[in-house]
Formats: sequence, C-alpha cells, structure tokens
Amino acid sequence: MLSSDVKVISVDDHLCEPRDLWERRLPARLQEAGPHVVETDGGSEQWCFEGVIAGPSGLSAVAGTDLKGRTMDPRRFDDMRPGCYDPVARLEDMDEDGVWAQLNFPQFPGFAGTRFLRAKDHELAHACLQAWNDYVFEEWCATSPDRLLPMILVPLWDPALAVAEIERCAPRGAKAITFPDTTDSLGLPSFHTDHWDAVWSAAEAAELPICMHFGTSGVPRAIAPDAPKMASTVIAGFTLFPSMSDLLCSPTLHRHPKLQIVYSEGGIGWMPYALERLDQVWEHYRFYDLEPRVDAEVRPSDLFREHVYGCFIDDRFGVENRHKVGVDRILFETDYPHADSLWPNSRKHVEEVLTDVPADEAKQMVHDNAVRLFRLSD
Amino acid sequence: MLSSDVKVISVDDHLCEPRDLWERRLPARLQEAGPHVVETDGGSEQWCFEGVIAGPSGLSAVAGTDLKGRTMDPRRFDDMRPGCYDPVARLEDMDEDGVWAQLNFPQFPGFAGTRFLRAKDHELAHACLQAWNDYVFEEWCATSPDRLLPMILVPLWDPALAVAEIERCAPRGAKAITFPDTTDSLGLPSFHTDHWDAVWSAAEAAELPICMHFGTSGVPRAIAPDAPKMASTVIAGFTLFPSMSDLLCSPTLHRHPKLQIVYSEGGIGWMPYALERLDQVWEHYRFYDLEPRVDAEVRPSDLFREHVYGCFIDDRFGVENRHKVGVDRILFETDYPHADSLWPNSRKHVEEVLTDVPADEAKQMVHDNAVRLFRLSD
Repeated sequence: MLSSDVKVISVDDHLCEPRDLWERRLPARLQEAGPHVVETDGGSEQWCFEGVIAGPSGLSAVAGTDLKGRTMDPRRFDDMRPGCYDPVARLEDMDEDGVWAQLNFPQFPGFAGTRFLRAKDHELAHACLQAWNDYVFEEWCATSPDRLLPMILVPLWDPALAVAEIERCAPRGAKAITFPDTTDSLGLPSFHTDHWDAVWSAAEAAELPICMHFGTSGVPRAIAPDAPKMASTVIAGFTLFPSMSDLLCSPTLHRHPKLQIVYSEGGIGWMPYALERLDQVWEHYRFYDLEPRVDAEVRPSDLFREHVYGCFIDDRFGVENRHKVGVDRILFETDYPHADSLWPNSRKHVEEVLTDVPADEAKQMVHDNAVRLFRLSD
Repeated sequence: MLSSDVKVISVDDHLCEPRDLWERRLPARLQEAGPHVVETDGGSEQWCFEGVIAGPSGLSAVAGTDLKGRTMDPRRFDDMRPGCYDPVARLEDMDEDGVWAQLNFPQFPGFAGTRFLRAKDHELAHACLQAWNDYVFEEWCATSPDRLLPMILVPLWDPALAVAEIERCAPRGAKAITFPDTTDSLGLPSFHTDHWDAVWSAAEAAELPICMHFGTSGVPRAIAPDAPKMASTVIAGFTLFPSMSDLLCSPTLHRHPKLQIVYSEGGIGWMPYALERLDQVWEHYRFYDLEPRVDAEVRPSDLFREHVYGCFIDDRFGVENRHKVGVDRILFETDYPHADSLWPNSRKHVEEVLTDVPADEAKQMVHDNAVRLFRLSD
C-alpha cells in the first residue's frame, strides 16, 4: 500500500511548449525560420519550423477529456488544458492528480530532440535547442524548482556540442538528459561504436541519467500501415525491448560504469522475460559473438541491475513481478497530458495498483528511487 | 512435475531438406532452376535456386555441438547430425531427447515458404512447394506417422492456389499450415484486408491451425546492423508481439471464429504483459479507432483466449505465470536442430522447469493441448 504521506514523483510527463517560446527567445534573424504557431485552413493551430507545418496531433494533449470524444485531428491551444503549456496551471493539475513532482519531456522538438537533428540548418537548430533548455530552467522549472524537474535536450548531430550543452546545463541544476533509445535508426552511429563515449562520460561526470522515451528512435515499422492506430500504440513501450537488447549487448555500459539509463513509458511487465531471455541467449552466443567488444563474463541481467530503470503507469503484472525486475530499478510515471495518462486519478490509481505491495516497496517505486537517481532534495 | 508416462509433443522443430529432395521430385525441365546443392569455393555446400546460391548458415543445425565451437559459417551436410535430414535418424535423436512427436517447419524454403514467394518464376515455385509437401507426406512423416506430424506450405502469392493446396493436403492428414506472422512486411495485403479470408476459411473447414514462426514476416530491423548477432536473437521471439497486436486489432479473428493461431518460438513470458497492455489500449482507443472494422465489445484478450497459442522451450518466468496466459493456450517446443535447442536434454530440461507445476497442468502444456489442437490420436 502507498502511505498517504509519500510524495508521488512522476519521471515521464510532457510539456507542450507555449506558442511564443521561440519567438521570445530566438534572435530576430532566426525567428522566421524558428518554431512559431500558424493558423491552418482547417481551423487548427500548428507549429511551423523551417517553413514546414508540422503537428501537434490530437492525441498529444488529451488529459481529462472523454475517451469517446478523442480524435486524431490537430487541435488548437484553446482545446488543451492550460496545464499542458502553463507551469502554474500544471502545478494545479498535479495537485488535483496527487502528484508532487514531474520530469517533463519536450513536445514539439520530439521527445529527444530529433526534430532539431533533422533540421536543414543546424545553427538554427542549436539555437532552438538551447532556447528550449533555457526556457525549462528560467521559466518552466523556475515556477517551482522542487516540483518541476529540469530535463535537457542535447544536439544529437555533434557529440562535442552535446558535451558542451551538458556542461552548460549541469551547473544550472539539470536532473536528466533526454536521448533516443537507439541512434542507428536515426542515421547516426550505433551504441556499438565509440561515437558517443564523450557524451556518456559527460553524463557520468555530471551524474545525469539518460532518459530514453519510447518512440525517440523512430519506431520500427512492425505493424501494418493499415492497422488501427491502437495496434502500434500497444507495442509502443515494447519497442524498448529491442533497444534494451541492443544496449545490453553493446560495449556502452561496460565502458561507462556510472551511466544510468531510464526507459520511459516502456512498462516493466515484459522485463523479467526479457532479462531471462537475454541471459539465455548470452549463454549460447557469447563465445563467438561478443569477443572482443564486451566482457563475456558479465551477464546482460547484471548490467541491467547496475544501469537500467523501468517505468510504469498502469502495469499490474509488472508490479506483481517487481522482484524479478528489482524494486530499486522501478520508477513511476503519469504521462500527463498524453493518451496513456490517467489524470486526474494518477495517485488514486497507483494506490490501487499498489494495494498489496508492502509500504516500503511502494514508496521506493513512486518516490525513493527517483530521489536517489535524480539527486532530489526531498 | 511431469509424470514419466507423459509423451512429450514438440510443436516447433525443423527438418533440413535432404540434398536430393527436389532433384528426385521435380520434372526434368525444372530441375536446373529448382533447389539443388552445390559445392562452393570455400568448401561448404549450399543450396542453389533459380541460379542464386543461398544458405544454409552455420546456426541452422547445431544440436549437440559444443557452444564454444559454434560459428556463423556455412556448413556441409556431413557436419550436421543425420537427424537433421534423415527421418530414421531423427526418430533416434527424438528418443535420446525424450520427445515423442514433432511438428517440423521447412528450412530451405523459409519457415513459411517465403523463398518461394520471392521466386522469379512462380510456376517453378509452386512445383517446388508441392514437392516439399509431397516429401513430407510420402517420406518424412511416412517414416512414423504418429511421431512426425505433417505441416504444409501454401503458395503465399495467390490465395486461390493456397486454398487449393490446403484442400489437396487436408485429406492426406495434414496437421497444420505454416504461415508468416505478418504479410504486409512481405509486400502482401495485411491482415486488415479481406485478401486472406478464403485461406482462413479453408483452414477453418479443414480444422488446420496456422503456425506462425518468428522471423517468417522478415524481422523488422529494430537492432543496429553492427550489433552482435545475439542482440537480434534475443528479440527474435519478441517480434511476435507486434504481429500478435496487429492480428488481435484486425478483423481476422472476428470473421473466423474457428481459426487457431500458434506463435512458434516466441516464448510465453511476455504474453501476460502484452494481454494487459492490449486491453488497456483497447479501452482508450476503441471508440474512434476500430469502428467499423472490428467488434468494439470483444477485448483483445478474449480473442487471444479463443484463438491463440504460445509456445515455450525454456521460459521459467512464462511457466510461473502460465495462468495469466491460460494453461490451455500453451504448447511445448524443442527447436531441434537449431541454436535454441537443448537436445539431447529437452525432456530432462522441461521436467526440471515443470518441477513445481501440478502434474495435470504440466501434461496439458507438453501433451494434451497439442493432441486437442492438432487432432492427434494419442
């Protein structure tokens, strides 16, 4: 059971950028190409970046709406709850939801900033990315530094710039870095290369966990294009299993003993199977397949227990099997304001899911692990 | 515990076609283009089809070899155990393994015959496919009809031909049809169309389950190309989760109430999470996403429990959670002679895995469910 005095910390939510974020923060010469909101003929408001109109989709901000009323159509800012883009309203919505603190991913830039990776003009993209990080420190999180925890974007197109951004933001109190769950799918070197070593070392030095949200690598097309949207939604979190297998079979965690990875919105109920399967395959394949890249004496499940966190919203099977994942390796998330969110019932719901869980373990998963990992004062 | 008098039935093994299968069975005019074995410069023996040399890889027949000695290199027939391609030797290997009966997938044609789908000449491919089915009835399974169970290939490029092949083979005692786990990935219409309805109806009429082996749809590239082979091997079975989500969100099972699907070499430990997640997403999305294609009152997990079987080799977590899958929905497999096989210890191993399982449930999973589903006499 979850004791009533435990402050719930959610490690995966989303802030919808206010319409004037970049207009206010970019130098004048970059404003026309930078992200700004335009009216479309269909009566929706959408972002325009480098002359291209893109998103948001209707599912990106539906917290509190009736299930039967949801559509895929683009929406207007006025259709969203102000808590989507206004940090003061967000805190009120968190109060109503029973959530003490949140770690928010970007929305328009992509959850790991891949829109800026794909930009034609990387100088512009760099300015946009730094403006987002500055907004997070100076406005969003400044509203309530204990409750709105700063996560930062890094330029994915240049590891040296990424290191510089980590070093620029760490002293300002950054708590985490958002990063794609795989990179080769984005046309970048994979985790099997040494391309990212300086970035991982900078994250280790700054004690910043890497949050890898499902979908940030570009979801592999494993579902028929004419399937209902729900089919790909079902497997969304599951797409982190290939990513985790890729990472745990790579040299990354062997070379970076302090690096911490959080798989966001991936669920935990699949992890016990995944860890058993990883170790079985490692047993069969390690002698000819791994050498000399990784240490063939360290099991993938050992790496997991030192380096990886899973997150849950509503995953009864995962919670029942928490000891197979490791109670110290599980975090809670609420996904406000997206379609998986249970707002305004997140706390009520997780209390119910945790009914049969001992109080100390419940507290670990919804509070203590996040405090330790993100070095929170509370 | 598994009682010593229970006959173990494995529903997923592989027969390596003997080198002269097609030379003996194709008309003379097709023999040059048809599959035949050639010596390569590197000293291996490989299949040649339509003038192209292809496979087998070294991992396709390793049962009983030392883990440290395994390589990815192509092999010679003499390097394999005769049980790979000789049904008499196979029965001896099954005796040594403690396995009573096997259902064998093809090897060279692809586990669901996709090599023939990709053939330039479909008249040739059709003849090759029928030769394989004839070989299975007349030679492989004729050696011991109770112990070697006939599974058939169908022409994937033409549903009418597939129906004809089902109708040709059903009266000969076919027990199952091998079929890709998704079709759109192969450039064919998806399960969301009515393209396959006649095939499903023919399978229902003949009471033939559809066995969908992982990898038959072309594994989605979710792992970095420079990752160790082990990373993609780990997720192999997991690739059936997207396929299952695709199927359970499609009209297929709503329209074909008797159709039975077996997910081969996919494991079962991920299924409880998958079923919980499927129902959650269905709850959130069904009103605007499914209509009018499927019945929005039938949960994906309800469809699963009427239509789907999972299979396990060595999946302790799955066996522990068998009641969340349904003990009547679980089958056993040994994967002889591939890399996941535990030959000659399959029975010993599954006895150990089932130590804490009540005898009636153990018998259901390794015997009774297969007898019922495949209409076996035993």
